[in-house]
Amino acid sequence: MSLDDNWITEICADGGSAFSLQRRAKLFEQRSPFQKVEVFDTETYGKLMLIDGCTMVSTRENFLYHEMMSHPVLYSHPAPRRVAIIGGGDCGTLREVLRHPEVERVTQIDIDATVTRAAELHFPELCESNDDARAELLFIDGIQWMKDAEPGSLDVIIVDSTDPIGPGEVLFTPEFYGACQRALGDDGLVVQQSESPLIHMPVLERMYRSLKAAGFADARTLFFPQPIYPTGWWSATIGAKRGRLGAFRRDDVDARGFDTAYYNAAIHAAAFAEPEFFRRARERWWSSA
Amino acid sequence: MSLDDNWITEICADGGSAFSLQRRAKLFEQRSPFQKVEVFDTETYGKLMLIDGCTMVSTRENFLYHEMMSHPVLYSHPAPRRVAIIGGGDCGTLREVLRHPEVERVTQIDIDATVTRAAELHFPELCESNDDARAELLFIDGIQWMKDAEPGSLDVIIVDSTDPIGPGEVLFTPEFYGACQRALGDDGLVVQQSESPLIHMPVLERMYRSLKAAGFADARTLFFPQPIYPTGWWSATIGAKRGRLGAFRRDDVDARGFDTAYYNAAIHAAAFAEPEFFRRARERWWSSA
Repeated sequence: MSLDDNWITEICADGGSAFSLQRRAKLFEQRSPFQKVEVFDTETYGKLMLIDGCTMVSTRENFLYHEMMSHPVLYSHPAPRRVAIIGGGDCGTLREVLRHPEVERVTQIDIDATVTRAAELHFPELCESNDDARAELLFIDGIQWMKDAEPGSLDVIIVDSTDPIGPGEVLFTPEFYGACQRALGDDGLVVQQSESPLIHMPVLERMYRSLKAAGFADARTLFFPQPIYPTGWWSATIGAKRGRLGAFRRDDVDARGFDTAYYNAAIHAAAFAEPEFFRRARERWWSSA
Repeated sequence: MSLDDNWITEICADGGSAFSLQRRAKLFEQRSPFQKVEVFDTETYGKLMLIDGCTMVSTRENFLYHEMMSHPVLYSHPAPRRVAIIGGGDCGTLREVLRHPEVERVTQIDIDATVTRAAELHFPELCESNDDARAELLFIDGIQWMKDAEPGSLDVIIVDSTDPIGPGEVLFTPEFYGACQRALGDDGLVVQQSESPLIHMPVLERMYRSLKAAGFADARTLFFPQPIYPTGWWSATIGAKRGRLGAFRRDDVDARGFDTAYYNAAIHAAAFAEPEFFRRARERWWSSA
């Protein structure tokens, strides 16, 4: 069966696969100094944002990604007060972070204000906390910001970035993780989206080796569904400045004063379960790094 | 971006989405009395079997589905000796079931021998246990077979069927589950693939209500990635003739004498973790059924 012009298609070249959504009108298009940002209305996924032709976020499924990029890492930290988000321009992760009453300050650093402008117009629900007094939105280079951050000044760093190709690539290097390591306090955690375990194991290997090279004491990956990204199965990887990952504030999760659609305590624990092929690879990467 | 004739595309109409794989040669095509069966070579997923144009199984990812349709239910039963597989013509589930030394007899009932013939030719690795003395392959109507089965004669029933539209629809009714219920022994379990929780919640609701109407004492869903099916996130639902689901033979999983690529004890426990939206729905379906 073939698709006519009423479909938006993203080809995943390394996966030899493609994913398509049935489109309605184009609602937004702007070429910034960094990238081309578009928003379409779709038949069944609500609105869809593309950056340089790659699907980024849709109304229907973004809860999966945004909840899993924020709540597991925040509930894995004993007292997350100071948070930085690198990237995250659609502001959905920011909204989830601000649901945590322990959080006193969130600085979001995305180089491209165009993404946030498109989100404010077409994903207003994701931007509903942008005016929270605890939030600061900066549109500058996040890597430089991290290098300049005061040592020990952050509890949690969330790297909500595009893929590790092109401008996003430097976010997967030991140099960047080294800057994160310095900026984090003693119990500090960094989390970063880490692609699909089914087709991007080399990216995950690079992340583990880079985290170890940068001095992180432990690293673990969490897994979750993500229907608009290649293979439909996605991951995020957490690095711990010291100590071992695994424990989390389960009582606080159960007593949380906000609604979630995907995340809960059972999902938190389950997300860290490693498929057999991944467990074998991760043990090799971490022990020999 | 658009796709040329070198792509195989499956449109998921209810999801408003489509999934495509880059194809090479067509290796098999046969129209049986029941359906059209095709096998293609693909660029990155190995071989791919289509039934009536719908993606069924590929070399690269079938381990996810076959391991999760067999090991969780078998390790949830205290002593699975007598197993029936309804459907399952590609024989991948059969192979996994036969890895369990406790299993004494497996009867596989698929109405269409053409599927098994295509698998023997193009997925020989899935058929490597077809000659096992414990296995019996029947090419007859599985629903009638189940109605005729001796009461209490099965420990585990695996319904490895196509989608609940067309010929597969009757497999999701209280009548069929009632036949399973009668055929199962006291600790008996039935497992059935139950589509994507992201777009097929009505199917899952129907299954839960049908299982309850048929007299099953408990039911739980397990979740796993499945990149070639719509949304990339799939499920299977287990019904228990009596007692509560949840416990499993963890020591036996850890001591299993065969390799797995996805399944292990951590994954077993994690697969049953319910996303918040699903937990709320399931509690409603089960309590009010």
